[in-house]
Amino acid sequence: MSDPELTSLTIAVLGGTGPQGRGLARRFAAAGLDVVLGSRSAERAAEAAAALASAGRVRGTSNAEAAAAGDIVLVVVPWDGHAGLLASLTEELAGKIVVDCVNPLGFDKQGAFALPVPEGSATQQAAAILTGSRVVGAFHNVSAVLLEDPDVERVETDVLVLGDDREATDLVQSLADVVPGMRGLYGGRLRNAHQVEAFTANLISVNRRYKAHAGMRVTDV
Amino acid sequence: MSDPELTSLTIAVLGGTGPQGRGLARRFAAAGLDVVLGSRSAERAAEAAAALASAGRVRGTSNAEAAAAGDIVLVVVPWDGHAGLLASLTEELAGKIVVDCVNPLGFDKQGAFALPVPEGSATQQAAAILTGSRVVGAFHNVSAVLLEDPDVERVETDVLVLGDDREATDLVQSLADVVPGMRGLYGGRLRNAHQVEAFTANLISVNRRYKAHAGMRVTDV
Repeated sequence: MSDPELTSLTIAVLGGTGPQGRGLARRFAAAGLDVVLGSRSAERAAEAAAALASAGRVRGTSNAEAAAAGDIVLVVVPWDGHAGLLASLTEELAGKIVVDCVNPLGFDKQGAFALPVPEGSATQQAAAILTGSRVVGAFHNVSAVLLEDPDVERVETDVLVLGDDREATDLVQSLADVVPGMRGLYGGRLRNAHQVEAFTANLISVNRRYKAHAGMRVTDV
Repeated sequence: MSDPELTSLTIAVLGGTGPQGRGLARRFAAAGLDVVLGSRSAERAAEAAAALASAGRVRGTSNAEAAAAGDIVLVVVPWDGHAGLLASLTEELAGKIVVDCVNPLGFDKQGAFALPVPEGSATQQAAAILTGSRVVGAFHNVSAVLLEDPDVERVETDVLVLGDDREATDLVQSLADVVPGMRGLYGGRLRNAHQVEAFTANLISVNRRYKAHAGMRVTDV
């Protein structure tokens, strides 16, 4: 199933013990890729990895060790800890493709809403901190519920991949393509990442109104 | 085809001589609705309406007269003139459902990008100016090329309808539903309109990369 270029690479997932990180790790492992979960607690990461053993090759360790081990490193941490974690890992992440998947959202009684980000978006914040890495944004709008559900065979959604580095966005598109039902599409430059992150708030509104686990398809492509 | 509540209503399209306005007017007229195109120049509006005569009942007049005539009034003007036009029509638009379709975008060599809006979004700006109207955001991501092409029978896209007034968003959803292939979906509150407007920049990036006229579908709904 996988792109031949991908099968030799290790995929690290920082913040890999949350639902979104666990879910992505499950899908990549199921596609035959080597996955390393990172967490603030190496123990919790190892536990989460053990729970995914039936899906494929997943191990767990600290965020720093996962960052060092990964060829492609997904960032799936809470927005609160985003800048701090990345600033602590500039060395481990140097030269690597870093895929920011973080949605800066607030929540109140009326649902979710986009938080302002001084750099424009979480992805641009990552790019500003990780000047030695190749930063891409992707996997923002994928339902964690569907990713985590082993009975869901196909995750029917497009993944918009944002970035200014064509080789990196191409590779991350092919990473999305390894998951059955998922399709990676180029979605624009880093400066257009904000609205894709924020769009998750709209999908949360859709989920509430229609009792759904909504995703998004681009038509005519 | 149409919702019975809609067939008795007049749909006004302010800025109706541009591609998006003409295209929406064509589709609503083809669905059997009464459409009034508005423009700064009543003459140009009348010309544009005449060109759509084969589609259905469309007439053209000034923006002010169209605003006064419409039960549902779509705002499809360039972002530059958005605030000024609405401020001049507060009286004509009082008590009406106003559907803001405007995408505040800038363009340079690298493509389209979202412009900052002090009120948060064009839709919120409209709501701030038109305090006596029922402001909804919708039709942001629909390809004008597809809308205008008489050979395109179905416009395959979802229309996210944003607003805080349930009755108004429901009616605008049913307005989207009259166009074959189009589906109106509730997409969240006014505060989540920005990213739907800005998402048009991503679709423009998609169109460039894939030579497409991209639209968007929400999955699992």
